[in-house]
Amino acid sequence: MQTLNIIKIGGSIANNEDRLSTFLKNFVHVDSPKIIVHGGGTAATDLCNKLNIPVQMKEGRRITDKPALDVAVMVYAGLINKTIVAKLQSLSCNALGLSGADLNMIPAQKRQHPEIDYGFVGDVDPVNINTYFIRRLLDEQVVPVFPAITHDGKGQLLNTNADTIASALTIALTKNYNTHLTYCFEKPGVLRDVEDDDSWIKQIDLDKYNSLKQEGVINEGMIPKLDTAFQALRQDVNVVYIKHADNLLNNTGTELIL
Amino acid sequence: MQTLNIIKIGGSIANNEDRLSTFLKNFVHVDSPKIIVHGGGTAATDLCNKLNIPVQMKEGRRITDKPALDVAVMVYAGLINKTIVAKLQSLSCNALGLSGADLNMIPAQKRQHPEIDYGFVGDVDPVNINTYFIRRLLDEQVVPVFPAITHDGKGQLLNTNADTIASALTIALTKNYNTHLTYCFEKPGVLRDVEDDDSWIKQIDLDKYNSLKQEGVINEGMIPKLDTAFQALRQDVNVVYIKHADNLLNNTGTELIL
Repeated sequence: MQTLNIIKIGGSIANNEDRLSTFLKNFVHVDSPKIIVHGGGTAATDLCNKLNIPVQMKEGRRITDKPALDVAVMVYAGLINKTIVAKLQSLSCNALGLSGADLNMIPAQKRQHPEIDYGFVGDVDPVNINTYFIRRLLDEQVVPVFPAITHDGKGQLLNTNADTIASALTIALTKNYNTHLTYCFEKPGVLRDVEDDDSWIKQIDLDKYNSLKQEGVINEGMIPKLDTAFQALRQDVNVVYIKHADNLLNNTGTELIL
Repeated sequence: MQTLNIIKIGGSIANNEDRLSTFLKNFVHVDSPKIIVHGGGTAATDLCNKLNIPVQMKEGRRITDKPALDVAVMVYAGLINKTIVAKLQSLSCNALGLSGADLNMIPAQKRQHPEIDYGFVGDVDPVNINTYFIRRLLDEQVVPVFPAITHDGKGQLLNTNADTIASALTIALTKNYNTHLTYCFEKPGVLRDVEDDDSWIKQIDLDKYNSLKQEGVINEGMIPKLDTAFQALRQDVNVVYIKHADNLLNNTGTELIL
């Protein structure tokens, strides 16, 4: 089977013009077929602040109300997505921005929770992803660029975590490709010591992951990312890496294995 | 040849939830293949005002500086485009939002003017439009939805008038389709008396257009729209209508002929 590279970049890359340009110049050298999934990081929060849209929290979780959703759609599916697409086109890479609503690519379900109404947040099940058009586009050397926006099929856009979208897309495409999922961020991998960039761990299997969590080496923000990554491996994704965006073209970074 | 309907909606429809829903419910009954082009009207200006981005004017023309462009990309290619796409998907219409950068659909040139720097405004030549992917998508029953955003191929997004995009797309596709271009707005057609909605003119040819301009019946905002429309007819577009969005499915409105 052909290898498909699905690469997720976080907001710290997507929102920084120099880092984004460096990343994209490397990305065009990644073998095709390939897909980008991008977050937006703090850019949406920054715009909310400028517009005096209060950040609503409930039990420590952020609530996406209608004004916050509109901002997410503008920033992720609008500004960041089209900036990436235009830059890739300038590098002769035939990019196409695709929210989950476009071509009904990623149907999602508004999050149901017994106590908390998270607002316009969508959960994705890989079985619902419409891989037909993704495969047709990849066959045409098109590079899909997905922002962290999905829809419920009833006309409602939803905000969905970009790590989850990357994982779900990759799982959905394992039937058709040898899938490589890479999470790029601003660190060289999973660090033993968060203060020491040289302390990145070369490989983590499930046992090691559990012991690193118990030791407190892996905590907070990294846990959902790694849970999502291991979920992908359990659902037959072939290769998962977490690495610095600058190391996209080499194998420096943390490889996750079962 | 197959008939292709290219329908442009203005900001007064795109920004009004009820009008947009009514329009889209009618639009799904238009025969395929079909394309939507949408403006954003005052929505971008409203967001500029909220963000204290000054509207820059030079010799009566609006200048699109970097902050104003970012807002246009967020509002047109982001919020309005994805709202339309999600609503169409809920009506079982397989919509795909496409800025001019996506799939390099609409390469444009930053406007050159001997005295005025208009900023990030793009002019489009129909010969540069990449019709290959449009035709492939239309063959797959996909409905492309174009916002008023193009790019220069060197990584720069540009703001381009939606009437012009609709006309240029239609001209570019006349080789492949029997093309029908419809400009939908909030009036039943070109009016003899701007205060009287019943005074719409059934048909205008070039001679009549020139005399209506001389009489002052057609003026200001309508002149560039009609110039663009007649330009389309001169370049072999088959049918051009200007009509109320509510009359999308009937022939009530002003037909332009050479």
